[in-house]
Amino acid sequence: MTYELYYWPGIQGRGEFVRLALEYAAAPYLDVARASGSEDAAVAAMMRFLEGRDTMYPPFAPPFLKAADLVIGQTANILLFLGTRHPIAPDDEAGRLWTHQLQLTVADFAAEIHDTHHPVASSLYYEEQKPEAQRRACDFRQNRLPKYLGYFERVLENNPGGDRHLTGKAVSYVDLSMFQLIAGLRYAFPRAMSRLEDRYPRLVALHDRIRELPPIAAYLSSERRLPFNQQDLFRHYEELDPQS
Amino acid sequence: MTYELYYWPGIQGRGEFVRLALEYAAAPYLDVARASGSEDAAVAAMMRFLEGRDTMYPPFAPPFLKAADLVIGQTANILLFLGTRHPIAPDDEAGRLWTHQLQLTVADFAAEIHDTHHPVASSLYYEEQKPEAQRRACDFRQNRLPKYLGYFERVLENNPGGDRHLTGKAVSYVDLSMFQLIAGLRYAFPRAMSRLEDRYPRLVALHDRIRELPPIAAYLSSERRLPFNQQDLFRHYEELDPQS
Repeated sequence: MTYELYYWPGIQGRGEFVRLALEYAAAPYLDVARASGSEDAAVAAMMRFLEGRDTMYPPFAPPFLKAADLVIGQTANILLFLGTRHPIAPDDEAGRLWTHQLQLTVADFAAEIHDTHHPVASSLYYEEQKPEAQRRACDFRQNRLPKYLGYFERVLENNPGGDRHLTGKAVSYVDLSMFQLIAGLRYAFPRAMSRLEDRYPRLVALHDRIRELPPIAAYLSSERRLPFNQQDLFRHYEELDPQS
Repeated sequence: MTYELYYWPGIQGRGEFVRLALEYAAAPYLDVARASGSEDAAVAAMMRFLEGRDTMYPPFAPPFLKAADLVIGQTANILLFLGTRHPIAPDDEAGRLWTHQLQLTVADFAAEIHDTHHPVASSLYYEEQKPEAQRRACDFRQNRLPKYLGYFERVLENNPGGDRHLTGKAVSYVDLSMFQLIAGLRYAFPRAMSRLEDRYPRLVALHDRIRELPPIAAYLSSERRLPFNQQDLFRHYEELDPQS
């Protein structure tokens, strides 16, 4: 069976957490937005699901994954599902719940990262909410960013399976997502990250190890990996990442 | 076994989604913040978990549930777990994933409701972010609120098990959470809701039915149900809910 991943064309976004898991698991998948002849056709196919025309179980938003008859939405839910099909998560109940719990905290972190540049409304341009973004990004850099990074550093430190993984003794989907968060934060907030990173040596080492895993390294150097860009979840604006 | 629910004292917050599920399932539980001799002691007990002193698997934030040796964080993850222990969710894989997916969309909705009064930073008072809150609440009332309500109305309409439940043919935890969202939105945005509600007859009927279920009716009239209040997730500010 070939999975079908539905997501917006042109951005990594939340779809990237799913792509990394599929790539690491070497799972056959079609990235519908990129595989179709045109981006318009891909978006139209996606909308048919969102509007409930192609499924009785419409997702609220992309990404969603079609797996045979199942249509699964919500990034963390997709990963929970993939973790039962591929060796990318612990397979005991406690381990599965804990890994999913961490992924839900990754999702919260990602939402807060997004809201640094869109604190008023996703439907407005960044340029329409710059003063609000400056205030929100300031709180993010000073409070939320170190709080989340400190939390995940501690999770690594506490992991009974060792501090090379967030959970268990092997790479799980949440390790892959953490790689993406660190890479994205370095793109969006290079100055804040360079000031902070030394405090989180385990997270930085995790990022570096994941990047070098053969299936991930191959993916990152392929055309399938889109570059970070300014329409995406992670965005770099000088004024949101000042010198100090 | 008696569950232990850890959450902030004095508010319903995200803990309420868990309380409603425990109450409906008639599951024995200790609401630690309210059962302790003092609120300070309850918060101190909670902090020991959050700081990783009482568990190797520290939650990022409350609520979390202690179930024998498990400490489970993230509201939707707690409900996913409870759904495997009590008849409050479908028990086939597809049904479990769909119910969880809906709950994760409830969580996103709740986060957006919270951010209408705290668009800049949770660490600041509302009074420190009033202009930003007015802009965000305006977008919420005009765009996000009808988008979410319209989505869930359609989910009810599409449900192969009938439009009396969001999923399957029986009450699930996501029906209970939807009751809480409608009740909270009526508290926070009475004017916007009175303008909009007619468009979502199935959601309103669901709210009314859940409220009358004997275990829920008993809970709502007990002292265990805290009133909505202005330190909580749902807050009513006149200026965020204008006449039109």
